[in-house]
Parts: sequence; C-alpha cells; structure tokens
Amino acid sequence: MAQIKEVSNAFIFTLGNEVVHGRVVNTNAAYLGRRLVLLGFNVVGNISLIDDVDIISHFIKLVINRFSPVIIITTGGLGPTYDDRTLEAVALATNNPLELNEEALKEVRRKYEEAGLEMTRERLKMAYLPRGAKAISNPVGTAPGSWLELPNLKSIIISLPGVPKELTAMWEKWVEPKLLEIAPKKYLAEARIKVVGLPESSLAPIIAKLVKKYEDVYVKSHPKGHEVREPVIEVYLMTCSTTKELATRRVNEAKEELINLLNRSGMKFRII
Amino acid sequence: MAQIKEVSNAFIFTLGNEVVHGRVVNTNAAYLGRRLVLLGFNVVGNISLIDDVDIISHFIKLVINRFSPVIIITTGGLGPTYDDRTLEAVALATNNPLELNEEALKEVRRKYEEAGLEMTRERLKMAYLPRGAKAISNPVGTAPGSWLELPNLKSIIISLPGVPKELTAMWEKWVEPKLLEIAPKKYLAEARIKVVGLPESSLAPIIAKLVKKYEDVYVKSHPKGHEVREPVIEVYLMTCSTTKELATRRVNEAKEELINLLNRSGMKFRII
Repeated sequence: MAQIKEVSNAFIFTLGNEVVHGRVVNTNAAYLGRRLVLLGFNVVGNISLIDDVDIISHFIKLVINRFSPVIIITTGGLGPTYDDRTLEAVALATNNPLELNEEALKEVRRKYEEAGLEMTRERLKMAYLPRGAKAISNPVGTAPGSWLELPNLKSIIISLPGVPKELTAMWEKWVEPKLLEIAPKKYLAEARIKVVGLPESSLAPIIAKLVKKYEDVYVKSHPKGHEVREPVIEVYLMTCSTTKELATRRVNEAKEELINLLNRSGMKFRII
Repeated sequence: MAQIKEVSNAFIFTLGNEVVHGRVVNTNAAYLGRRLVLLGFNVVGNISLIDDVDIISHFIKLVINRFSPVIIITTGGLGPTYDDRTLEAVALATNNPLELNEEALKEVRRKYEEAGLEMTRERLKMAYLPRGAKAISNPVGTAPGSWLELPNLKSIIISLPGVPKELTAMWEKWVEPKLLEIAPKKYLAEARIKVVGLPESSLAPIIAKLVKKYEDVYVKSHPKGHEVREPVIEVYLMTCSTTKELATRRVNEAKEELINLLNRSGMKFRII
C-alpha cells in the first residue's frame, strides 16, 4: 500500500459463464463502475469472461500491459467448486503462484468449525491466494477475497466474490476505505437536463460546441423517446475537480451554457 | 455470408461510458449472451469500454487475433453525436475505412425527409459504414447497423445501437435469421435443481465427480443462501447436441446421476 499511490486507471473483470451467457444480469459491473468513478478513478472498461484460466489470465495481462498503473477489480470464481478459478488466473498472469494464506485459512477454518464442519480439500482451496496477497475478510459468505499489490507495475489486483451481497459488504467495509488512501484526489459533480422536441441529431452540433468550450466536462446525450417522431433527450454532464465545490460550479456553468446555446439556436424545444 | 460458415466463437462488445461507469445496468450483454448461446455459439466474453476509438479498436483486434473465426457483436456508439465512434473503431481495427454507404444513406435520408427535416452533417454521419459493410435496417430508431464480413479471418463484426428496443428489434428481424445460416448446428438443453441443507463446499466434490463422468455437460452451482448457516444451492446443468432430443436426454441423465450421487453420499439434504 505504502509504495503504491495515486493510481488513476481502473478496470473491472466480472467473471463467470452465468454472466457471459446471460443467465444473470451484470449488476456487479454497474455497482463497481459507479463506486470507482465516485472515488475519482478513470474507469476504462469491464470484461466478463467464461471460467477459463488461460483466457482470464490472458486478458489480465493485456490490461496490465496497456493500462498500468491500474487498479483491477475481479468478481466471481473464489468459491469451492471445480470452476472457481479466478485466483489461479491472477496467479498465472502475475507470476505469483497460489500459496496457503495463513490469514485466509484462519478465517475459513473458524467459519466451518463454528458450524461443526471439518476442513475438506474444497474448503481448504478457498484459503489459497496468490503469493504476497493479503486476505480480505468476507463478513457474509466463506470465501475470503485477495488484495495483491504489484509494486513494480504500481498496480493492485483486488479479487472479490461474485455473490452481490458478499461483494458489496467486502467493498464497503474493507476495500473502499483502503482505496481512498490511493485514489486520485478528485471529486465528481453531475447534472442532467431533459430536452423535449429536438432530435439527437439536432442537439449534436450544440453539444459539440459545448464540449469544445468545456473540455473538462463530459457531456453525453441519451435518447429516451423516438429520434424524429417524439424526441426526448436526456443530457448528462459530469466533471471532476480538486474540490466538490469547484466541480459543482463548473458542471452548473456548462449546464447553463448548454441552455443558452439551445435558446440561441432558434429551434423549438422544451426543457424538463 | 456465403463464404463464412460454421463459426463457433462469439464475443460481445457493449460500448459507452454510461455502461462502464455504472449509470445503466448492462442488460444488452445479458440479452445478446443468451441469444447467442441459444444459437449454439461458444460465447467467450463481453467487453464494455469507454467511448475511445483507440481503446475499442485495440480490444477488437485482440479478440480477432485470439478467437477468430469469431462473431463479434458491438452495441452502442452509432448515433449522431461527437462520442458515437464505434464504427470508426471497427474501421481502424479491420483496416476498412469509413465510407458513405448508399443503402444506409437512403434509409437515414428517408426517415428525416418524412419528418420534414433536412440532412445535416450529424445525420449524414450515421450513413458512414466501414468499407464493404452491409447496412442493417433500424425499424425503431434512425441509425442503421453494420454487418462487416472479414473473409480472410472467417469472422463477422455486427454493430448495433445501444438503445435496447432498437437493438432487440434489429436482432430479431435481421441479425438472428442471418446468423442461423452460419451458427453451429447445435441445440441446447438445460436443467436446474435446488439443493437445500448442503454447503457448496460439500456439494463441490460430488459435482466434480459428475463433471468427470459427463464431460459434455456443463454444471455450475450457484449459492443462494448462506454457506454454513442456511445453505441453498441452485445447480444448473446445460449441454449442447446435434438434436434437441439428444441434448435433453443427456442433460436429464446428468441430473438423475447428480441426484443418485447425492443420495449415495449419506449427507442430509432436500431437493426442491
């Protein structure tokens, strides 16, 4: 931790056949994307992959090569079954072989002992983490997470379970407080307006003009109605700055300027 | 089309900052993953990326290099605004520069003319597709899709809008009927059982035994309760075969075998 500071990029891996094959909707990706953005990270992407060690490790390596220093969050594949192989992939990608982790072992053993169950190979498996990783306590389920720092690359791979209530508990209690120490010191502010009666294609040149003037403000139009029959466009504006106040002021300025540009355009529309 | 046959791999790209940053939950990925699996494709992964031409094109190239012959589906980034740049990325990745597509132009022009609106640069932009691509008609919105065949790689890149009702309409009317001609001739069958009272870690060695015997059946356990306090595990079984009947018979055999293995284990549980 001490040696890794001010990482800007973040990348999410949401792993498991059930996600890729559409048997569950990927709410973990949305949760993590939003939390990382609010921490000030530049979240570049999210990759969902089937439970295949070679493929997962291939993509982890690619992301490290292109985006480090980077925070990588993985979800899924930490459990006791034959296809829970995320940490094998992390181990392979970073050349840190799996080792029995004392902290993780203590936690796993305690949970099964309390339930009067003995340690089996499958239960022991959950206590193997990549060499050098720190165990992340799981207050809801049994599989610990893994916090693996890669000092040479100034990167961290954080592996969490795929079960949403385990993931969110571990994120909020353990991961986010630690990430706050290294997150970019940036604060986010957002604004939204809905423009009724203008096709997105009519709004496009106005937004292009706005973005040119406010290079630090991210502006995106989201069509909610029908482009030509009954257009409704939600315009989302977002910026980051060194204080919350600066960010809020800037995003509101951009919003006012957008309304001015629309008013001066001579086109017919309503704002709701 | 004629020259590309029997592609097995599929990969999905769901593009846009709003997806990566968690402002929307990625239902398109689940929709496409499921539809492709039902067509018999081996869906390897889904990548969501911010609206950055270099990054998107980088990952498209990586996926083509590793998984071709492959069907790549992209969603998002086809509209009229400054950050709708998916086809630029496809053009860059495949070395097929954007060109005005006559078919796309006719469709876009007709839609705006019917609404009494003239063609602007932003509207014209939606008629530019990678060289050699076929336009996919959009019966709901205005931006046409793009069907780009890469005969040397036996791969196809299919680009669709991100608005779900446009995506699903184009998929069902246009894309899926065409994909049926080249999809692997495989049929899928599924089964599920819920096991109450056994921790996933107790089920794990039994599932490992089952998978060894039924190598062609995919088996995955999904914990729904609490591992040690009140365990409920949904076991999902799936297989593909040359006929629906063969697939159904095989998956049911595996399900019966799982129940037999559980009964013979001597452990206490219920099946619901």
